[in-house]
Amino acid sequence: MSSHPIKLSALQTRLFQAKAERKKSFEDIGKQLGRDEIYVAAIFYGQAKPTLDEIEKLSKYLNIPAAHLLAEFGPQFYPDRGGLMSIPPTDPVLYRLYEMIQVYGYPIKAIIHEKFGDGIMSAIDFSASVEKVEDPKGDRVKLVLDGKFLPYKKW
Amino acid sequence: MSSHPIKLSALQTRLFQAKAERKKSFEDIGKQLGRDEIYVAAIFYGQAKPTLDEIEKLSKYLNIPAAHLLAEFGPQFYPDRGGLMSIPPTDPVLYRLYEMIQVYGYPIKAIIHEKFGDGIMSAIDFSASVEKVEDPKGDRVKLVLDGKFLPYKKW
Amino acid sequence: MSSHPIKLSALQTRLFQAKAERKKSFEDIGKQLGRDEIYVAAIFYGQAKPTLDEIEKLSKYLNIPAAHLLAEFGPQFYPDRGGLMSIPPTDPVLYRLYEMIQVYGYPIKAIIHEKFGDGIMSAIDFSASVEKVEDPKGDRVKLVLDGKFLPYKKW
Amino acid sequence: MSSHPIKLSALQTRLFQAKAERKKSFEDIGKQLGRDEIYVAAIFYGQAKPTLDEIEKLSKYLNIPAAHLLAEFGPQFYPDRGGLMSIPPTDPVLYRLYEMIQVYGYPIKAIIHEKFGDGIMSAIDFSASVEKVEDPKGDRVKLVLDGKFLPYKKW
Amino acid sequence: MSSHPIKLSALQTRLFQAKAERKKSFEDIGKQLGRDEIYVAAIFYGQAKPTLDEIEKLSKYLNIPAAHLLAEFGPQFYPDRGGLMSIPPTDPVLYRLYEMIQVYGYPIKAIIHEKFGDGIMSAIDFSASVEKVEDPKGDRVKLVLDGKFLPYKKW
Amino acid sequence: MSSHPIKLSALQTRLFQAKAERKKSFEDIGKQLGRDEIYVAAIFYGQAKPTLDEIEKLSKYLNIPAAHLLAEFGPQFYPDRGGLMSIPPTDPVLYRLYEMIQVYGYPIKAIIHEKFGDGIMSAIDFSASVEKVEDPKGDRVKLVLDGKFLPYKKW
Amino acid sequence: MSSHPIKLSALQTRLFQAKAERKKSFEDIGKQLGRDEIYVAAIFYGQAKPTLDEIEKLSKYLNIPAAHLLAEFGPQFYPDRGGLMSIPPTDPVLYRLYEMIQVYGYPIKAIIHEKFGDGIMSAIDFSASVEKVEDPKGDRVKLVLDGKFLPYKKW
Amino acid sequence: MSSHPIKLSALQTRLFQAKAERKKSFEDIGKQLGRDEIYVAAIFYGQAKPTLDEIEKLSKYLNIPAAHLLAEFGPQFYPDRGGLMSIPPTDPVLYRLYEMIQVYGYPIKAIIHEKFGDGIMSAIDFSASVEKVEDPKGDRVKLVLDGKFLPYKKW
Amino acid sequence: MSSHPIKLSALQTRLFQAKAERKKSFEDIGKQLGRDEIYVAAIFYGQAKPTLDEIEKLSKYLNIPAAHLLAEFGPQFYPDRGGLMSIPPTDPVLYRLYEMIQVYGYPIKAIIHEKFGDGIMSAIDFSASVEKVEDPKGDRVKLVLDGKFLPYKKW
Amino acid sequence: MSSHPIKLSALQTRLFQAKAERKKSFEDIGKQLGRDEIYVAAIFYGQAKPTLDEIEKLSKYLNIPAAHLLAEFGPQFYPDRGGLMSIPPTDPVLYRLYEMIQVYGYPIKAIIHEKFGDGIMSAIDFSASVEKVEDPKGDRVKLVLDGKFLPYKKW
Repeated sequence: MSSHPIKLSALQTRLFQAKAERKKSFEDIGKQLGRDEIYVAAIFYGQAKPTLDEIEKLSKYLNIPAAHLLAEFGPQFYPDRGGLMSIPPTDPVLYRLYEMIQVYGYPIKAIIHEKFGDGIMSAIDFSASVEKVEDPKGDRVKLVLDGKFLPYKKW
Repeated sequence: MSSHPIKLSALQTRLFQAKAERKKSFEDIGKQLGRDEIYVAAIFYGQAKPTLDEIEKLSKYLNIPAAHLLAEFGPQFYPDRGGLMSIPPTDPVLYRLYEMIQVYGYPIKAIIHEKFGDGIMSAIDFSASVEKVEDPKGDRVKLVLDGKFLPYKKW
Repeated sequence: MSSHPIKLSALQTRLFQAKAERKKSFEDIGKQLGRDEIYVAAIFYGQAKPTLDEIEKLSKYLNIPAAHLLAEFGPQFYPDRGGLMSIPPTDPVLYRLYEMIQVYGYPIKAIIHEKFGDGIMSAIDFSASVEKVEDPKGDRVKLVLDGKFLPYKKW
Repeated sequence: MSSHPIKLSALQTRLFQAKAERKKSFEDIGKQLGRDEIYVAAIFYGQAKPTLDEIEKLSKYLNIPAAHLLAEFGPQFYPDRGGLMSIPPTDPVLYRLYEMIQVYGYPIKAIIHEKFGDGIMSAIDFSASVEKVEDPKGDRVKLVLDGKFLPYKKW
Repeated sequence: MSSHPIKLSALQTRLFQAKAERKKSFEDIGKQLGRDEIYVAAIFYGQAKPTLDEIEKLSKYLNIPAAHLLAEFGPQFYPDRGGLMSIPPTDPVLYRLYEMIQVYGYPIKAIIHEKFGDGIMSAIDFSASVEKVEDPKGDRVKLVLDGKFLPYKKW
Repeated sequence: MSSHPIKLSALQTRLFQAKAERKKSFEDIGKQLGRDEIYVAAIFYGQAKPTLDEIEKLSKYLNIPAAHLLAEFGPQFYPDRGGLMSIPPTDPVLYRLYEMIQVYGYPIKAIIHEKFGDGIMSAIDFSASVEKVEDPKGDRVKLVLDGKFLPYKKW
Repeated sequence: MSSHPIKLSALQTRLFQAKAERKKSFEDIGKQLGRDEIYVAAIFYGQAKPTLDEIEKLSKYLNIPAAHLLAEFGPQFYPDRGGLMSIPPTDPVLYRLYEMIQVYGYPIKAIIHEKFGDGIMSAIDFSASVEKVEDPKGDRVKLVLDGKFLPYKKW
Repeated sequence: MSSHPIKLSALQTRLFQAKAERKKSFEDIGKQLGRDEIYVAAIFYGQAKPTLDEIEKLSKYLNIPAAHLLAEFGPQFYPDRGGLMSIPPTDPVLYRLYEMIQVYGYPIKAIIHEKFGDGIMSAIDFSASVEKVEDPKGDRVKLVLDGKFLPYKKW
Repeated sequence: MSSHPIKLSALQTRLFQAKAERKKSFEDIGKQLGRDEIYVAAIFYGQAKPTLDEIEKLSKYLNIPAAHLLAEFGPQFYPDRGGLMSIPPTDPVLYRLYEMIQVYGYPIKAIIHEKFGDGIMSAIDFSASVEKVEDPKGDRVKLVLDGKFLPYKKW
Repeated sequence: MSSHPIKLSALQTRLFQAKAERKKSFEDIGKQLGRDEIYVAAIFYGQAKPTLDEIEKLSKYLNIPAAHLLAEFGPQFYPDRGGLMSIPPTDPVLYRLYEMIQVYGYPIKAIIHEKFGDGIMSAIDFSASVEKVEDPKGDRVKLVLDGKFLPYKKW
């Protein structure tokens, strides 16, 4: 089981423990829920709101009573997103993601504007995936971020 | 020409002006240089080191004397990367990129570890691209980040 | 019931739990108290001072002994307002509110001065409401902030 | 003309001066452009991208050569939004807006979720208006913020 | 009794509870101790050092054993002052005090120098009082801060 | 004339120079304008909006053309208040004012609530004065802050 | 045993206690594990991921049940690195390391670029060692940092 | 010549320009001065105090009048060290150095104490060197930091 | 006994309590240990490493079992110094020390360089003492800081 | 002449230049003015207010017209103290002073209270001196800080 310096609730800790004891990956759980592995991890970290159906499947697969999951993730639960990391993050994996924005943020902004005009790439109507691309010179992480373009409204 | 609150050198401003006056996109320039449009924008923003060949091509295409470009981007130039934005960034395009890491950073880290083990996704042996995916419900920005996986050395 | 990363007192947590168990909305509770739903939520978050009458009604409607409510929200209680979020807030709902001020704060200030002269819009003699405006292109949130204009005193 | 501690470009300063010399309000200019007064002020503060048509009208009404406006606000200009104020802002008008979010941010978030479900109020597909409501006990500022509701995508 | 987001010791909480249960104001307690009401509140908040005589009077008036008060506020106790609030404070009452200094701090400094020369107004040889001034247009808070002028020593 | 590390506009610097050359105090200028000396200093520091009448009197008394004053302080000028100092301020005079709030802020808040109920002391409908109280043990600075009490509105 | 202001998990504290009670140095433990002493200390501080073999050896040498170590450091554990210190660190040993980078960071960067070109020194494919060099004028600490050079990819 | 976002004086910029125009490395200059290349770079960045002899040699080798160098680096010059970078630094080369301390700082501290007792590694009686170690799997940067151990004095 | 907002370990709290109950000053304890009173206070605050002999004497004088002291302050204990206060500190005694450096830090640096050349005053080979100097105009605190001068090494 | 990253006014720079050209130390200048060398340096750094007599002596000794000195340091000049350094300072000389307070601040506070009671050591009625104490093991810097004790007033 993982030692999280970030603050997790008792239920979240239990989810991580059940996953470790059953030796399941987020991909395994994602197949049960019909969700991408990143999305499942987002539920574990309190960054996404599971449906009642997802809660039931989590309950069965990880053997945690649904009532316990509902007490925390029930209909009135809406995630208070973010706040897991300091800024900038100190963990090297997180920092590299952050550095990509520090260094290439303005270039990416410039290309989005050239291709789409004045607006943004949504972080709400959004999905992400991680793919492992094998390479003899060293495998590569392909991280795809996919968000709807939202043009600025004029009024 | 764009008004940049971020501090650009006189030469960088001249690059942006020449680009605007000639009505060229970063894609246009990238085709001349044989580089991706994001990479070209990174050169404009001082975040990448152009080769002598790229400097010559930039000089011809944008009609800026090569000597002027060499004075700033010559062999002894090594970018002092980052530092263009406040943290968190206030511009909504940049902020959304930053928010994706705030919200999905730990889930992405978890999946990278599950797929690759203990290590990081490199921001140095790295490339990025922006693709426009047309969609009747609203076009989508597909941002692909591609970095080599670097395992932690034990000693 | 909701998982609040923000620190709530034991009594506040109990209020949120009672509300979730009884499946009541802030609007339901607001009707009992004769108060707007935002105002009721402000009481739950410790941002407004309930009257003795409101405490009694909360006690009956949510089945929490009035003595328990009085021990925390009694006559000598005056809220220590704010401090619930980091600045800037990381939650996307809160951040968007914050971004509206980042981007349109100076324009709003300029219009207030043009319409009213030198002074401020009060955040004390103030009310707020949220309305759902249905729209075939996507429903809209109409947030109305209403504050007394206070002119600067000269002396 | 106003003294802006915030950094404006030479052209922005000229816009404010022309407006002051002609004794025009943002409402006056808005009528010429067919835009709300807040939107016009956002253009002045570099927070919105004017169309070519708007640039032409601004040029005529304020007697500034269109070429000068185009040099800064032309087709390749995309605002680098935000960054005008320190956080928290020190100006009392701006601070009160900020305080409204500090104190009522979580209550507003709670009501948005109760009325719309899991998602956010957009700051991009967004408009704002300021209305003066006369009142014998002191006139009131009615600030209406209107944003599209964007539900979180699941994947 | 009040809910203090600020961290109070168990004994300080007990002082506030005893005060609330007995329905006493700081003015009431101040009359018993022969101290101004602000000074008494400063003792409650751990910002002033009570004498043995004051401890005894507090003990009797609020019915808390003197030994308990002495264990925390005894002869070896010297307050570690400040640190109760974030900077800037988020509570509107505290923020307004802070804003008065933000806006009028340099003007006040200028007048002190014109009237007294080079030096400061002491915050140690200092007292403060709050007076309620009734006014048909709305009662006024008169806050008097009184500090010894200390001239800079030359050497 | 004083060396201001804080950034003043060219006109503000000119005001301070004219005042120093004519050896006038803020009290002297205040008598001409019919304003308190602190209020006059606030105008010099860009923290208050002078009327046309005050501008004319300043112009005559300090021998600065009214047109120059109007160009900066004219009808469309609305101060962008605050921002003159770092937080906490480093200058000892300013720091002591700040320390008074650090140490006695919560006690003052407690007394305001006991005397007035739930609300704030206004920093807008506000005035301040500095008085020199002679004392054989060392003269004292009496700083009086006078603000309207504003009760929280319920809705 | 050492008093760590930094937050360690219960298991980490137990590791430090077992080491102190058995009077073992990190060098002693390193010999058992076949790892450098700094690497072993990094495991204790949660900054490196031990293998199953290393966990077994730690268990035997320090007499802590392997099951307890596995519960925290098992296969699903991936360190959340960094975050142990404030920035800048206050401890003088840590601060001096930090100051070396403050003062000599740019010179070191310049030399790396001159010797290797555009790229970085990896902190992942990396090792460190501390050697004691005896010297009559005072022993010296020789800290060797050894990282792979990673050239920037062009794309 | 390099574009330095960090603020260099006119003379420092001239040193970098002369070095680039003559195509000299810090190693070349170091040989002239009898100093390590890092030490020479530290002089260029204003982080070390050159002797009169070193100034003369710099003057001859880079063809800058000694009087100009003496005007800035003369006998009364004592460097105001540090302050070149933000913290944490954004440049990836500098950040990796910083990350080494974030991650391995406490382990290094622990080993220094085990080998030397209570004290620090000096950053004053200190030297640093960068060596290129060729390696078929990728060349390595060997950074050696060498500082005198200073034991804490007891008194 | 004193109420410390700063975080002390259970053993440190016990040391302060034992000192208060026995009504001993740091000077009293210092005489037992043969150490300066400031040095003894530094041990209490976890800022200095006591020897085994000092631990034994503390144990006897304050009647705390040596085993308890050794469990925290034993041979493997090396203080993690600093971190007790926020920066700037809010307590007025600490702030005044801090202000002395804010105001006179550069002048002191200038004089050290004029008298000693390029180098620093050590905070490791260092001692401090506080002396009470009686004065009819008010007693004075004479704080002597004594540190070895360390010249910068050239290499 | 020294290169000051800290911002000095044109006149302050001229003072430093004149001092360097004449090869005078602050001690030399102090003898002319009848002031301690630290106090003179404080005037140069804008941290102390020179008298008219001191201005005249400075003028003669450094050959700068008194009118120029009076224009900046004249009767209406009151220093805006502090603000010269970042916090924490990066220069090692300044940092060591700062570290002495980080590490020994609470111990010094404890001893001041034990010797003087509740109050502070003044930074206003204050002087400082630096003495060079020769020592075969390395010369020592003796920094004496001397401030009036100010007891807290009760009211």
